[in-house]
Amino acid sequence: MRSPGIGPVTFRQLIARFGSAAEALAAVPDLARRGGGSAPRLFGRDDAEREINRVDKLGARYLTLGQGLYPRLLAELEDAPPLLMVKGDLALLDRPAVAMVGARNASAAACRFARGLAHDLGQQGFVVVSGLARGIDSAAHDGALDSGTIGVVAGGVDIFYPPENQERQTAMYERGLVLAEMPPGTEPRARHFPYRNRIIAGVASGTIVIEAAPKSGSLITARLAAGAGREVMAVPGSPLDPRAQGCNQLIRDGATLIQTAADVVEELRPLETRVESPSVPFEPAGREEPDESVLGRVEELLGPSPVPVDEIIRLSGASSGAVQMVLLELDLAGRLERHAGGKVSLKDA
Amino acid sequence: MRSPGIGPVTFRQLIARFGSAAEALAAVPDLARRGGGSAPRLFGRDDAEREINRVDKLGARYLTLGQGLYPRLLAELEDAPPLLMVKGDLALLDRPAVAMVGARNASAAACRFARGLAHDLGQQGFVVVSGLARGIDSAAHDGALDSGTIGVVAGGVDIFYPPENQERQTAMYERGLVLAEMPPGTEPRARHFPYRNRIIAGVASGTIVIEAAPKSGSLITARLAAGAGREVMAVPGSPLDPRAQGCNQLIRDGATLIQTAADVVEELRPLETRVESPSVPFEPAGREEPDESVLGRVEELLGPSPVPVDEIIRLSGASSGAVQMVLLELDLAGRLERHAGGKVSLKDA
Repeated sequence: MRSPGIGPVTFRQLIARFGSAAEALAAVPDLARRGGGSAPRLFGRDDAEREINRVDKLGARYLTLGQGLYPRLLAELEDAPPLLMVKGDLALLDRPAVAMVGARNASAAACRFARGLAHDLGQQGFVVVSGLARGIDSAAHDGALDSGTIGVVAGGVDIFYPPENQERQTAMYERGLVLAEMPPGTEPRARHFPYRNRIIAGVASGTIVIEAAPKSGSLITARLAAGAGREVMAVPGSPLDPRAQGCNQLIRDGATLIQTAADVVEELRPLETRVESPSVPFEPAGREEPDESVLGRVEELLGPSPVPVDEIIRLSGASSGAVQMVLLELDLAGRLERHAGGKVSLKDA
Repeated sequence: MRSPGIGPVTFRQLIARFGSAAEALAAVPDLARRGGGSAPRLFGRDDAEREINRVDKLGARYLTLGQGLYPRLLAELEDAPPLLMVKGDLALLDRPAVAMVGARNASAAACRFARGLAHDLGQQGFVVVSGLARGIDSAAHDGALDSGTIGVVAGGVDIFYPPENQERQTAMYERGLVLAEMPPGTEPRARHFPYRNRIIAGVASGTIVIEAAPKSGSLITARLAAGAGREVMAVPGSPLDPRAQGCNQLIRDGATLIQTAADVVEELRPLETRVESPSVPFEPAGREEPDESVLGRVEELLGPSPVPVDEIIRLSGASSGAVQMVLLELDLAGRLERHAGGKVSLKDA
């Protein structure tokens, strides 16, 4: 997972094909060569042990996709993080969760509303998940600190971002839970935030958006939640307030308008049974060895525009397993790009 | 229509049975007696001529259900007013109309929003209908005064209520249209407002609610619009503002959230063809003479709780025409109460 060029989807497919990380690591150089590239530099055993020691020293621990306490709803995502680092109260992972996201520059009124809503949802037994950002995120964590809150950070589990959140995040190590996908010490960058957002949406059975401008990150989280089949809820506001227009548009697009915790509970209670269905993150796949002709056909079908994998399989006339194997090889060779919705394209040579 | 105890539904049924007002008036005393009451005091020819003269002198005129310029959408209501008095630009009755209603004590921001929305809807070719009340109503009329606006008053067409609306209403005699159901000189009372609201909702193909508290008159108008199969639209607001909670609840209940005139146009354009379908307000009914046994059975089936007329017909085993006739007799005898949704009950003796 720490080797460059291996994302969550590739990781999942490698484990599914080779059964274990050790066997997958052994196979990667050969796969990459067959895909027409050079072998990626692999993350070594020493690197891994150094990171594990560091996580230990931080008082954090790993959660592994499909095992133990790993959040069951998050495991349903196609691109679920194979590894998470968590620090805090692990019992919070076993309770129904609702995400609350919104503007960093939210109005004082909206922050007060978010704090109250988070508190009330806590009283109803929900863990409140958010992103430890300024504005709505901070208000949501504060409102739910006594009842249970999970903060998903974009950088390492030990990094305070924004810096003024140090006190809040430290309190959540003690009384809440802080969760990260990136290794310790990682300073968050712009590209990390959408990945962080998919975890916020993925951990929760529903996402509530409060004060989100059009095209804001909160709307991305809402879209990710909807894409994962989760409930999307939004708090309305005056059309005269630009910070409300994103939420109002979400409601027009089908999100549920909510005004109170009771509205949220009404929306989420019927879903709770869903949480019980176990997921199978590493479904074993056949180990077909594709002939060269499949590689050729798949390469022909791919181009710079994203195409659904299903369509490649259909048009190639080859078996699903053979096509997936070729895609894995191209991926490891650094020649494939994976997009949302199971689409793939060839990278520019 | 001016005789006491004869409402729009009874009026419509009398005309349907007897073909003309003259024949209906002649039959009423006998019908009332058969229903077990005394004959109502009828509005005489002299009374009628006095009123007609007064309407003439005011520069107003009558519109008659099912004839001429009478608004086609309004005629679709089961309890459409048989007579309307109008003063102003009659051409406005021939254009697509949208109603805007809301709080009398609306915020300055909401009034500004209403004025802008009314103006923009006017630019899109819609006539804006409202109730000439304080707050949102006034703002809506003002925004649409140049493009076309209809004010429906609860009292007589010549009465200014609230008094500070005199200037606005006078301007609308000139450049808009003022519409009333009550005879000239009638001061509006509390019970008149729901009747007024059904006209606002009935004239328009959709009703927009802006800032309405729970249980407000604006929500009644929205309910009447929905009951008449019209579009209900609402402008959202912060859940922290009590004046927004009614609108937010409407949206939760299925009203369309709107933020701009474009949102309204998108909602209403597909309906415009509907306006073309002619209605048949006075469908001729058979003149069955029910035997006494039907009267007895219907009286048995009726009680103080409202029951659908359809159910009375089914349970009585009599024909629809015979039951309707008996209900008409009970009505004229002052013993029947008609409720929304085609329900009836017996009045306390």
